[in-house]
Amino acid sequence: MSVADLRERTRAFVRDTVIPQEHRHGPDSHGVDPALRAELQAAARAAGLLAPHVAPEYGGLGLDMRGRADVFEEAGYSLLGPQALNCAAPDEGNMHLLELVATAEQKERYLRPLARGETRSCFALTEPPPGAGSDPSMLRTEARRVEGGWRIDGQKRFITGANGAAFAICMARAAEGATMFLVDGATPGFHVGRSLPTTDSAFVGGHAEVAFEDCRVGHDAVLGEVGEGFRYAQVRLAPARLTHCMRWLGLARRALDIALDYAAGREAFGQRLEDLGLVQGLVADCVIDLEASRQLIRHACGVLDAGGRGTHESSIAKVFVSEAVHRVVDRAVQVHGGLGVSHDVPLARFLDEVRPFRIYDGPSKAHRWSIARRAARRRAEERSS
Amino acid sequence: MSVADLRERTRAFVRDTVIPQEHRHGPDSHGVDPALRAELQAAARAAGLLAPHVAPEYGGLGLDMRGRADVFEEAGYSLLGPQALNCAAPDEGNMHLLELVATAEQKERYLRPLARGETRSCFALTEPPPGAGSDPSMLRTEARRVEGGWRIDGQKRFITGANGAAFAICMARAAEGATMFLVDGATPGFHVGRSLPTTDSAFVGGHAEVAFEDCRVGHDAVLGEVGEGFRYAQVRLAPARLTHCMRWLGLARRALDIALDYAAGREAFGQRLEDLGLVQGLVADCVIDLEASRQLIRHACGVLDAGGRGTHESSIAKVFVSEAVHRVVDRAVQVHGGLGVSHDVPLARFLDEVRPFRIYDGPSKAHRWSIARRAARRRAEERSS
Amino acid sequence: MSVADLRERTRAFVRDTVIPQEHRHGPDSHGVDPALRAELQAAARAAGLLAPHVAPEYGGLGLDMRGRADVFEEAGYSLLGPQALNCAAPDEGNMHLLELVATAEQKERYLRPLARGETRSCFALTEPPPGAGSDPSMLRTEARRVEGGWRIDGQKRFITGANGAAFAICMARAAEGATMFLVDGATPGFHVGRSLPTTDSAFVGGHAEVAFEDCRVGHDAVLGEVGEGFRYAQVRLAPARLTHCMRWLGLARRALDIALDYAAGREAFGQRLEDLGLVQGLVADCVIDLEASRQLIRHACGVLDAGGRGTHESSIAKVFVSEAVHRVVDRAVQVHGGLGVSHDVPLARFLDEVRPFRIYDGPSKAHRWSIARRAARRRAEERSS
Amino acid sequence: MSVADLRERTRAFVRDTVIPQEHRHGPDSHGVDPALRAELQAAARAAGLLAPHVAPEYGGLGLDMRGRADVFEEAGYSLLGPQALNCAAPDEGNMHLLELVATAEQKERYLRPLARGETRSCFALTEPPPGAGSDPSMLRTEARRVEGGWRIDGQKRFITGANGAAFAICMARAAEGATMFLVDGATPGFHVGRSLPTTDSAFVGGHAEVAFEDCRVGHDAVLGEVGEGFRYAQVRLAPARLTHCMRWLGLARRALDIALDYAAGREAFGQRLEDLGLVQGLVADCVIDLEASRQLIRHACGVLDAGGRGTHESSIAKVFVSEAVHRVVDRAVQVHGGLGVSHDVPLARFLDEVRPFRIYDGPSKAHRWSIARRAARRRAEERSS
Repeated sequence: MSVADLRERTRAFVRDTVIPQEHRHGPDSHGVDPALRAELQAAARAAGLLAPHVAPEYGGLGLDMRGRADVFEEAGYSLLGPQALNCAAPDEGNMHLLELVATAEQKERYLRPLARGETRSCFALTEPPPGAGSDPSMLRTEARRVEGGWRIDGQKRFITGANGAAFAICMARAAEGATMFLVDGATPGFHVGRSLPTTDSAFVGGHAEVAFEDCRVGHDAVLGEVGEGFRYAQVRLAPARLTHCMRWLGLARRALDIALDYAAGREAFGQRLEDLGLVQGLVADCVIDLEASRQLIRHACGVLDAGGRGTHESSIAKVFVSEAVHRVVDRAVQVHGGLGVSHDVPLARFLDEVRPFRIYDGPSKAHRWSIARRAARRRAEERSS
Repeated sequence: MSVADLRERTRAFVRDTVIPQEHRHGPDSHGVDPALRAELQAAARAAGLLAPHVAPEYGGLGLDMRGRADVFEEAGYSLLGPQALNCAAPDEGNMHLLELVATAEQKERYLRPLARGETRSCFALTEPPPGAGSDPSMLRTEARRVEGGWRIDGQKRFITGANGAAFAICMARAAEGATMFLVDGATPGFHVGRSLPTTDSAFVGGHAEVAFEDCRVGHDAVLGEVGEGFRYAQVRLAPARLTHCMRWLGLARRALDIALDYAAGREAFGQRLEDLGLVQGLVADCVIDLEASRQLIRHACGVLDAGGRGTHESSIAKVFVSEAVHRVVDRAVQVHGGLGVSHDVPLARFLDEVRPFRIYDGPSKAHRWSIARRAARRRAEERSS
Repeated sequence: MSVADLRERTRAFVRDTVIPQEHRHGPDSHGVDPALRAELQAAARAAGLLAPHVAPEYGGLGLDMRGRADVFEEAGYSLLGPQALNCAAPDEGNMHLLELVATAEQKERYLRPLARGETRSCFALTEPPPGAGSDPSMLRTEARRVEGGWRIDGQKRFITGANGAAFAICMARAAEGATMFLVDGATPGFHVGRSLPTTDSAFVGGHAEVAFEDCRVGHDAVLGEVGEGFRYAQVRLAPARLTHCMRWLGLARRALDIALDYAAGREAFGQRLEDLGLVQGLVADCVIDLEASRQLIRHACGVLDAGGRGTHESSIAKVFVSEAVHRVVDRAVQVHGGLGVSHDVPLARFLDEVRPFRIYDGPSKAHRWSIARRAARRRAEERSS
Repeated sequence: MSVADLRERTRAFVRDTVIPQEHRHGPDSHGVDPALRAELQAAARAAGLLAPHVAPEYGGLGLDMRGRADVFEEAGYSLLGPQALNCAAPDEGNMHLLELVATAEQKERYLRPLARGETRSCFALTEPPPGAGSDPSMLRTEARRVEGGWRIDGQKRFITGANGAAFAICMARAAEGATMFLVDGATPGFHVGRSLPTTDSAFVGGHAEVAFEDCRVGHDAVLGEVGEGFRYAQVRLAPARLTHCMRWLGLARRALDIALDYAAGREAFGQRLEDLGLVQGLVADCVIDLEASRQLIRHACGVLDAGGRGTHESSIAKVFVSEAVHRVVDRAVQVHGGLGVSHDVPLARFLDEVRPFRIYDGPSKAHRWSIARRAARRRAEERSS
């Protein structure tokens, strides 16, 4: 099946199967109800749409990054879509990483059930200050070699999906350098604490504090090579940023469609709302923001598909898209007037979901700082060449 | 007591008495708990700070608009402050209107207990489409003369504070023209329906639908003169817009202070956050937005205090301030990183409170339309003179 | 030669051959000196870089739209670059149109010398109000059949390159509908009037008023079919918009490079300018604007290369790019401080050149209006399907 | 005469006497023709409007800062207005300083003829890097005591009005600290060099490089006290910033009026331009920007009139106003379409005049940095109190 076909089928699936269930995911829901999630995944599986990003041998559709750009945008058109297709964060990024780095045995144990939607996972990197935050090199969680394997100690926070995760990919500092470990959720010494009460509610399992206290794992828990943690983090980083962008882009497009539907049916000052110049200005700016977002995502995907790291391109896309989708949803709210700030339409909720994206995965100011430094460095090289 | 003194005392009262109670008004509270409100008002009464906008003979402090600008900004520094001082919308605007238009008897019956904080009220103007919305001339609620008084019939919506209000000021169309009526909450035929589930939660009594169905009131229920409703609405309009601006300006200043406190205590990239250029840019923009807001408010207040209608000036202030306070709170969120979008700090909630202000009291696009038309008209007059 | 090679060679040519001659095109130059233009074109011809957009059989390099995107951006890095490569407006768009529509004989007579840089041309569509402006359907210039051919009468204005043009492509209203004519510059009744004193000075021949007064041309002057003028205008429109975008994008990249060079060599407040957070914010925003511009252009080019009309995509690109390049140059000025607004660096001049692009080829407000209407229409179709 | 009267008379004078002479100050004029200036000043003198900011005993009207805000805005409505009223920079700021600091004898010699418009002056503070620029503490020009007075050596640049100035107020570093000197234009060793070819052309005498080379002045050349130079610079700084704001605000209001006149007389898409929503949005944003600018200026003026230093308030006003007036003129250009970027209307020129103001008198980034630091400091004081 071509990507174009898959895109159309995902669009139809979201429209016909997912959106009709959205009423079950009310504005006060924190996370998606597991039963609803399972039900939607069953439907997606039946429709042949599950795990579009995973290799066919692990049950997925094998899309490259550009293919994901098309399909994930469609999935993101509903807050429940990525859950339904099992391509939501952080599981989606973890599957990507496992596929590239895990041993065959680890893939069987962790990737296969994850890709099937039978389990969930989390990625335990971020730490409370003064540990690893925007700057991963501050990593403080420690991994020491002990009899039979490793002992991990440290605090993590903002760990999306930790609550209920079957396993965590934990980043810790070993003597040889940063290293990733696969830690089963039931491992003694792995504690999931309080979830931060954030405004968003579409991530299953919230954003929790996690503690590793004398947490013992075997040698086979090492993901990839000891000491290569930062390199693997990079492998996960750029694609995970981009898939976030894809999904939120879909939601922003939905917001615009809702606004267009509303504007087509209402009048003010003797004109249809959609014909008022000031509304048309808002709509046009949304269309432009969506299109620029889409093309920045696709370009960065192309770089990755061609084997590039895509750090710069995905960083640019992340800043632009996170701010653009927020503007789009905000304008859609404005078009609606009073109704826009009520929960009778889903836009106020969309605002709560997209606002954090200007912060998650690196706040805009950190990305801008990196982008500017990279630009200065590149130009310095040109000057000296 | 000078306005400057009153301002300082209000500042101290909010800091020492109101803010310590904010934990009782959690992010999921809808409206303020009546017991908390009563307790805070008792404290304000004891401090001599209650009802700063009301004439002394009705128990207030008799501030003119410029005086209110100073004091209400301080009150708004906490979401609970305007409730504590009994200068929150819509009661505050209703007191203003009653003081100017009501008969002595009506003042005793409605204004005095309202100013004391013993009752609450609502202002029933807005109607569902195709009735009075941004364009009040579409008014459809009808008032007909009947034996012994009037019969009112019509639908209202978005009526802030209706739930629990002791009385409503209802705008209806009589044969002689738009007319205002004082309708007791217990009057048969006055029905308060569902509240719109909006993102804000600081207005006691929410924003409800209200129905008048064969609702009978006496001749003494007419507020001011029959047929003068639109003129009175204008009397209430400009000041009410401005007092909204004052209170939200206070909240935005609070948001900046929270951000400054955070930035002073955190480090990133080896610098204190407050010394990072990109954070300084956000802070400076907040300071500028706050100051411009303050001066636009004061100017419009001066026009009103000098006897002008202030329609143009208050409209300009409303657009600018509503957008500026939103920007300020949004930047304060951004300075905080992940914490900013959690309910561990109050900023995410502030966003929910201020976002609707770009819509309430006339959405920005409607104000911009009026401002542009007025500018064109004024210039046409200059050309022809 | 691959497009990537061509891009690199163009970059080197502009850097090594064109930029060193820029001092001969001072800030007060109106248009490029013909001798300088000829000299640069000779160099480009020698380097095998002339007319990259023209079919090889007419002496060009045969690039499709995506290829042009890469190469024209490099050409635009100097204001003289597009002149040097003979890919400046309006000639470039005229060559595109002639290649698609003209007869073999017309191509020999008009296209071949134009592609070689031996002649210049203009496109006479826009009229003074109430004629064809943003809305081409208002066309008033008339073409009537006369003995031996046609007689054209009408006023045109803002006709770029008219002064000195060997021929004009003139749009006129015939009985059968809008029709294009090839009118030699020496034809009696073809008058080139005053050039509008615009801020830009990179277009050879300025933007002139043109009058057709009893201007007689033969039957062979008809370009394509009689009555098909609007269709051909569409054929020229989207590509011409995009090639404008490509060239200005190159100039904006140049502006950023100039700013980066400056910021690398200056200090303020004890830091290198390039390390100041507020400067980094400006730089990052430039990088993001440039990249989003580039990807919007490429996407629209892809649509055209695949046979689409690209009206919507090129309109979106035009609005975004014209505003983005202006922002980029404006920020580059700001980075420079006082020097930025002097003609000791070329940035103030770049501002004068790019500012009109937010107006030329359809002002932003007209494009936004079209974009919004198209969005509403597309959504209406989705709703009804 | 009341300030309100003076304002009206200035408005009428500019409209009836100054604007009709604007054609003599074409887009390529650098500086105003001295004959035109003299003629206009004669008219202003006859109208009793000359030097509104100067004390009556020196021939002025004695306005305080708030009075200047009203009158200078009217003067600024034409680029020639401030020249006509003799309240243009830098003379106006120099008169202000002389009045406050000079001895009676110095006032007779320098202030009186300057106030009468018989002479011009300059203020020689800024130096080429690494000297005094945004950061005056970097001052490098030296003043050493010699037989009979002082010897001054150093380089200055960007010295507005130096060309043709009767005298300079020169800031130099003496052993006792920074000191100001009154240096006659004919003094040996005082050299006026090249003027920077900036985009603006309304400052008589341009922005020149100035050199002091073994420049000898007497003891009576010291302005105020030796060692108090920085304090006096502060005395001049805040008011001079604000009077810049006032004049440019007037020009921006003019730009809006020109746009309103144009929009009233043109049609597009079947509507008058002034009724198009997208144009109305631009107009409303201009009105809001102008009003916010005006109120920020007035507020800072009030602080100064009350004896405050106004550093913070004038800095906020400067950033906002300089950016707002640029936005206003830019929108006025956009409303005009192609005509807007031509010199057939004066808007393109206005752009060239106002663009530098975002840089002159401290670029926005430097002001933002100061504003943020001051905000952090004030908040730190509040926290510790």
